[in-house]
Amino acid sequence: MLHGDTLPYWVEGRTKILLPNSIMPDTHMPRGPAKIGSGGFVNPAMASCRTRSVLLLEDALEYGWIGKKEKPLRVLEALGSTGIRSRRWRKEISAQYQNRFKICVNDRNIKAIEQGQNAADSFETEKKIYPYFDEIEGTNKAGITWSNQDANQLMFEQNFQWIDLDPFGSPVSFLSSAIQSLPRVGFLEVTATDTAALCGSSPSSGLRRYGSRGLNDEFRYDDAIRILIAHIAKVAAQFDRKIEPVLSMFDGHFVRVSLLIRKSKQGATNIYKQIGWRDRTGLSALVTEKTEKASGPLWIGPLCDSDIASRLTEEKAEQICGLNLKEMPTDWDQQRLNLVLREIRRSVCHIADAAPLLSQEHLLIPMDVFAKKSGRGGPPSIKKSISILQANGFEAARGPYPEPTLITNADESSVMHLLNQI
Amino acid sequence: MLHGDTLPYWVEGRTKILLPNSIMPDTHMPRGPAKIGSGGFVNPAMASCRTRSVLLLEDALEYGWIGKKEKPLRVLEALGSTGIRSRRWRKEISAQYQNRFKICVNDRNIKAIEQGQNAADSFETEKKIYPYFDEIEGTNKAGITWSNQDANQLMFEQNFQWIDLDPFGSPVSFLSSAIQSLPRVGFLEVTATDTAALCGSSPSSGLRRYGSRGLNDEFRYDDAIRILIAHIAKVAAQFDRKIEPVLSMFDGHFVRVSLLIRKSKQGATNIYKQIGWRDRTGLSALVTEKTEKASGPLWIGPLCDSDIASRLTEEKAEQICGLNLKEMPTDWDQQRLNLVLREIRRSVCHIADAAPLLSQEHLLIPMDVFAKKSGRGGPPSIKKSISILQANGFEAARGPYPEPTLITNADESSVMHLLNQI
Repeated sequence: MLHGDTLPYWVEGRTKILLPNSIMPDTHMPRGPAKIGSGGFVNPAMASCRTRSVLLLEDALEYGWIGKKEKPLRVLEALGSTGIRSRRWRKEISAQYQNRFKICVNDRNIKAIEQGQNAADSFETEKKIYPYFDEIEGTNKAGITWSNQDANQLMFEQNFQWIDLDPFGSPVSFLSSAIQSLPRVGFLEVTATDTAALCGSSPSSGLRRYGSRGLNDEFRYDDAIRILIAHIAKVAAQFDRKIEPVLSMFDGHFVRVSLLIRKSKQGATNIYKQIGWRDRTGLSALVTEKTEKASGPLWIGPLCDSDIASRLTEEKAEQICGLNLKEMPTDWDQQRLNLVLREIRRSVCHIADAAPLLSQEHLLIPMDVFAKKSGRGGPPSIKKSISILQANGFEAARGPYPEPTLITNADESSVMHLLNQI
Repeated sequence: MLHGDTLPYWVEGRTKILLPNSIMPDTHMPRGPAKIGSGGFVNPAMASCRTRSVLLLEDALEYGWIGKKEKPLRVLEALGSTGIRSRRWRKEISAQYQNRFKICVNDRNIKAIEQGQNAADSFETEKKIYPYFDEIEGTNKAGITWSNQDANQLMFEQNFQWIDLDPFGSPVSFLSSAIQSLPRVGFLEVTATDTAALCGSSPSSGLRRYGSRGLNDEFRYDDAIRILIAHIAKVAAQFDRKIEPVLSMFDGHFVRVSLLIRKSKQGATNIYKQIGWRDRTGLSALVTEKTEKASGPLWIGPLCDSDIASRLTEEKAEQICGLNLKEMPTDWDQQRLNLVLREIRRSVCHIADAAPLLSQEHLLIPMDVFAKKSGRGGPPSIKKSISILQANGFEAARGPYPEPTLITNADESSVMHLLNQI
């Protein structure tokens, strides 16, 4: 058992968390996967993902796109480790919505659950009244029901409207259970860190786990997202449910998709019209029939909900999750404070601007691919590329991908023509 | 709670079971699906399926193709209702193997589990010592651990080497849990009664549940089997497991497949080479690439294990599951006794003869299709067809399908040529 005073602490969003010294951020945030230890597993590189979880739940409660006002939303962090995401929901979501949801954080590792409770005990000293899951075996503390069991068993035992799956590796073991746990309308957030399988650098793993073949080229980030969504859509369809992507990201070392899932036989049948291939002829295109050089099967439908994702601005992120200077450690210098703030804004970087295009048919152009196709030594500036397209009446934005990637509703020949003028 | 003396009884195999008067067989066995009542669900039309379950477990223990001699095999009837299958395993499998397996029968309906225990109490009066699952919450009685919980939760709680899934309708809700419950080598038997989805008469259900499109023609029985196997193979592959069909049947109103499932990354990757399509050009062929008039994706690999299925003879069935006249009701006349015996033999009809062909590449010819293709008014006798093919050096047999269906290793033109001589 780790108490609040045996580990140094860090602040993620507005929430104090315990971090071993070995992974304490200094002048930059760590990136990439972390190691599983015997105790609670915490990866500070997932902070951006948790920040978006906070913003999405805030948005759902503010705009009422899931659940009913009079009944607390049933939220599960199924593989929660020390429950940082759950604690952030309780700490950072606006006070006026705090009685509108229950949270259960579950982990099979009792040490992680105990460490999380201890951290909540140490840091959340204000006594508030929250709704709890009294029907779940666990401890109610700091607005969270702390549960220590097998995630799949828990999901078959209870219904949850909002399920977060953030496993170590592939989420495939949990998807069928999660979807069967959702009521008629539910929200599912899924992390996949097995990017080698999803990006085509481990094609046989991709085939086994997701039934798809990736191609490890410049389109791999977008492909990885779409392969994961297609897989989830097929599992959902088995239970007469359709999916609607709300937000889809490739963020550093993981894929993260957030989906509304609704009971609808017709909708579930129709998802098969949105599963296809990415053909590599020309600048690449999403197509319904397999071609010679294609990755897939993958999702060829929208990647986000335009309204919701457009509201995930850097300003909103700072407003909801940004520093509360009164609660910051007194010994933190300006550099550290800046780091935390920069991290919050970075969590939603490019999302709001790209949302309208990502929610409709668009052309995706990794800038390096454009350079190759046009025979130039290197790509033009993405800012200038966006400007020239917009100046010519097209929509264009930078996509939220790890490499500079242009998205636009312009056709291929206009893109080639206009960008070559830069 | 129903006691042995409040319902009349019937004998299935060698096992006495309780049956409501309304479904008591008289001069013929009922066929087709039964209704779910509030108590235990029993469908006498599934007797043949249970008989094969007895024979397969007997064969596994006799030939040692699963588990280790020194450790009792862990067997689960996951959706067992009143546990007739489990009681038959205990009653009919040879005495010398009875200490080599544990059985858990599970059902979410407490009335069914109680009724099953009462029947076991009434009919199994001999006191014997059996191995039990002491780690499972339930009642140990008559060699069976009777469990009353959610099947998926139970499968995530415990590992089982032999899992029987016999749900009402589609098995899709249970497959991921079942496969994750199996150890490195396991055996999975799956019933699907949603034949409209599998046979292409409800194509949208087929697409949603199994991700495949069936075509509702003479090939639908074989297609249904292959669509179900392909689906299970894909779920198994997610967990690095390969499947090996041991026995595959379309029996009256349901599909039943019995598969060995082994941990093997390479094997799991390779199953995708055995998933393809049935093309309808010519007499039909299993192909790896989609064609214009094709059903699938479906399993194009072997449908059974030649050695094991060849041993499922009518003689063996009678030897293991046939009447024990000393235990028969004294008021049963010869007609009833004949009915029970005929039913036992019918359970494995055509299997042993067809096994060598079903375990390799073969041509499948519903006799009506041959008649159409050759422009004849009706098909020739299937017996004569088999004889003429064999006389010309080909292997040929009647396949175990609901309609007269020839299987052979002859090529299409030889079949057309030879059968047209009849």
